[in-house]
Amino acid sequence: MTDNKVTENKYIAQQINEANKVAVERLMSVQPILTDVDTALNVIPGMTPKTILHSGPPITWSRMCDPMKRAVKGALILEGLTKDNKSAERLMKTKEITLSANHSHGSVGPMTGIISASMPVIVTKDLTYGNTSYSTFNEGGGKVLWFGAVEEETINKLLFIRDEFAPVMKKVIKRIGGIPIWSVLAQGIQMGDECHNRHAASTNIFLKNIVETLFSINISKEKAFKVYKFIAGNSHFFLNITMTACKLAMVGASDIKNSTIVTAMSRNGTDFGIRVSGLGDNWFIAPSPLLLDALYNPGYGLDDGAPDIGDSSIIETMGLGGFAIAAAPSMASFAGGGFQESVNITKKMGQITTTKNSKFGIPCLDFEGTPTGIDIRKVVETEILPSINSAVIHKSSGAGQIGAGIVHAPYECFTRAVMAFGKHYDLAA
Amino acid sequence: MTDNKVTENKYIAQQINEANKVAVERLMSVQPILTDVDTALNVIPGMTPKTILHSGPPITWSRMCDPMKRAVKGALILEGLTKDNKSAERLMKTKEITLSANHSHGSVGPMTGIISASMPVIVTKDLTYGNTSYSTFNEGGGKVLWFGAVEEETINKLLFIRDEFAPVMKKVIKRIGGIPIWSVLAQGIQMGDECHNRHAASTNIFLKNIVETLFSINISKEKAFKVYKFIAGNSHFFLNITMTACKLAMVGASDIKNSTIVTAMSRNGTDFGIRVSGLGDNWFIAPSPLLLDALYNPGYGLDDGAPDIGDSSIIETMGLGGFAIAAAPSMASFAGGGFQESVNITKKMGQITTTKNSKFGIPCLDFEGTPTGIDIRKVVETEILPSINSAVIHKSSGAGQIGAGIVHAPYECFTRAVMAFGKHYDLAA
Repeated sequence: MTDNKVTENKYIAQQINEANKVAVERLMSVQPILTDVDTALNVIPGMTPKTILHSGPPITWSRMCDPMKRAVKGALILEGLTKDNKSAERLMKTKEITLSANHSHGSVGPMTGIISASMPVIVTKDLTYGNTSYSTFNEGGGKVLWFGAVEEETINKLLFIRDEFAPVMKKVIKRIGGIPIWSVLAQGIQMGDECHNRHAASTNIFLKNIVETLFSINISKEKAFKVYKFIAGNSHFFLNITMTACKLAMVGASDIKNSTIVTAMSRNGTDFGIRVSGLGDNWFIAPSPLLLDALYNPGYGLDDGAPDIGDSSIIETMGLGGFAIAAAPSMASFAGGGFQESVNITKKMGQITTTKNSKFGIPCLDFEGTPTGIDIRKVVETEILPSINSAVIHKSSGAGQIGAGIVHAPYECFTRAVMAFGKHYDLAA
Repeated sequence: MTDNKVTENKYIAQQINEANKVAVERLMSVQPILTDVDTALNVIPGMTPKTILHSGPPITWSRMCDPMKRAVKGALILEGLTKDNKSAERLMKTKEITLSANHSHGSVGPMTGIISASMPVIVTKDLTYGNTSYSTFNEGGGKVLWFGAVEEETINKLLFIRDEFAPVMKKVIKRIGGIPIWSVLAQGIQMGDECHNRHAASTNIFLKNIVETLFSINISKEKAFKVYKFIAGNSHFFLNITMTACKLAMVGASDIKNSTIVTAMSRNGTDFGIRVSGLGDNWFIAPSPLLLDALYNPGYGLDDGAPDIGDSSIIETMGLGGFAIAAAPSMASFAGGGFQESVNITKKMGQITTTKNSKFGIPCLDFEGTPTGIDIRKVVETEILPSINSAVIHKSSGAGQIGAGIVHAPYECFTRAVMAFGKHYDLAA
């Protein structure tokens, strides 16, 4: 390399580092507040009565994985656009229905991540930059849309959430005025949550925040109890709320010229995509991987799982979940059993990130902050892949969740992003 | 030593080990259930309208430390036995009032631990051996009797607890039928509680257990809220409940012939005492130590603190609290700052105990159980002293709590117990 070339490379690296510093500072300064509950059609930008939003990068009907297709059909039934699975299949072929990625609408959803027009959504606002993000309420376990398990009870639960649960929650949240999400998660991290697959403490803290209001607003005790029980019975309830906060952090860090910070990791069960701050809304895509390190429900194994799916890896993009697994020793079984394995994963994630987020001090690491701000250069250089805590859906039977474990973001997404970055900024290296 | 002597010693050691095994098995098999709330006079054995129970080994009025005296006077005012501090002082000199140790009445109380006749008490029953234990409700922070800070607001709070809070809690607990205490603590240990100085998670879990009932029993919403707020506003609320459970475990392990297992550690702010399973209800006493490793509130230091006080070290006797500090990294500041220090303490406590309690898996130690069943022989041999998480009260001003930290049980208690054991069982060694 000529001396000129070395000097130029150093200059470029410096520019990128400075841009990344800005991106990460913006990401850390976001203040997400759960402020409202509303109907998707009313609030999500670009939503129409015939739009179905889904997780992951944009995808066509024909390329969608089986569980996501099942969830789309369920949403069409919920919306009254069709009566059953068969007619839903026909309807999808007419192309009357618009499929669109959550991320293109300021939204996020776990697993299949389906949002349709009449669904109630969480409305989260960032006090710092004024952005808004949306997600559905978490449905809990069993036959549920987010896991692509669609039966009569699935639709009934969605109707309960829409017609009974959400109106009460709207009143509660409006009365409280807003719930600061980082504050709940910061406490959760001290109580064994990694804030992706484990939200047991955060959900308890959320409940504690709303109980007084829930039982003091002007509704029947019976109604209040139904709402209380729905939340108390689902330790994942806070998951979708966490996702809206992480989404806002990433929107805050987006579109910084020269920045190589990852602003989204997401999968639709077919493709795994990432976005990069200095590269706008482009997705850098590779095939979505299977969960090689997963614990399966009895009777199921690797062969039964669909490729990884969901927008929930926005949580790891924010340095929580898999990146914070050392905070949640009960997740150690995913990491191969030992607590030290969990610590090693968090330490490794420190090698591909830019800073430590002191808001989330990991107790057993002497309150060291969570490793935050993935740099595509570091992933490519070190070949350390972002570690994501995830769940597995059956690939074809409609059984819903069959396991949970760890998955790694594909290396190709990062090499493609680095190449696109070089091209975009006209860099030789 | 003659061969005969060696053989005899081996035989004795074997007998003790077997007895300890029985004691520890009994301790572990206790199933404490919070079953009721009642008035001290109604339920505590030996309670009279003119009895004041206190923490620690038995002590006379003249030898009581200042904060405990203040708390006794507060209780006399609450009971209407006297009007103010001065007349209380006079009353105490008449000897009309009986002072007695909580432990002599199946009871326990944190810090000054005062229980008087009209106070409401938690009633906890052990399903395995049928024993019952009692404690007051935790008053929370500020000017409170348990910290010997007695002002008008102290009495008002006690009146609220007695006349408003406890009747509601009685209804709630009766309706629920009983709350299994180990189950709450086992979850707490997974969420960063060591179950002595940190009960944040356990208190949340307890709340979650009672909320539905609290808001469905036939009382006004306003009343239910007052009760809810009182609990939700005090992260130590579950402390006294934990203590009743630990007390029952120790009662279960008591009076096993030949056993050297510690069944109580307790202090009254003047003396520190321990009880041993094979030695009945005797206390082995030494001066109560100051908290050398404590964090003091601004303006206070070691010189301001009273010697260690309270029955709450029944928690360490059970292998929780200081023994489980590795489960609560947020307590690390007590241990000298580092997380590793906390782990070291828990590991050390393993050297003076008999077993690991798998009910309470410490997350960061790969769910190794808490070190349980202190053996007086091991303490004397290793000179490792039981590590107790505690709080500091001002020694003379009535300011209440001025700090918190770690204290060690005095070595002398254990040497005295070992000597008494030798004498009792007519052992030469």
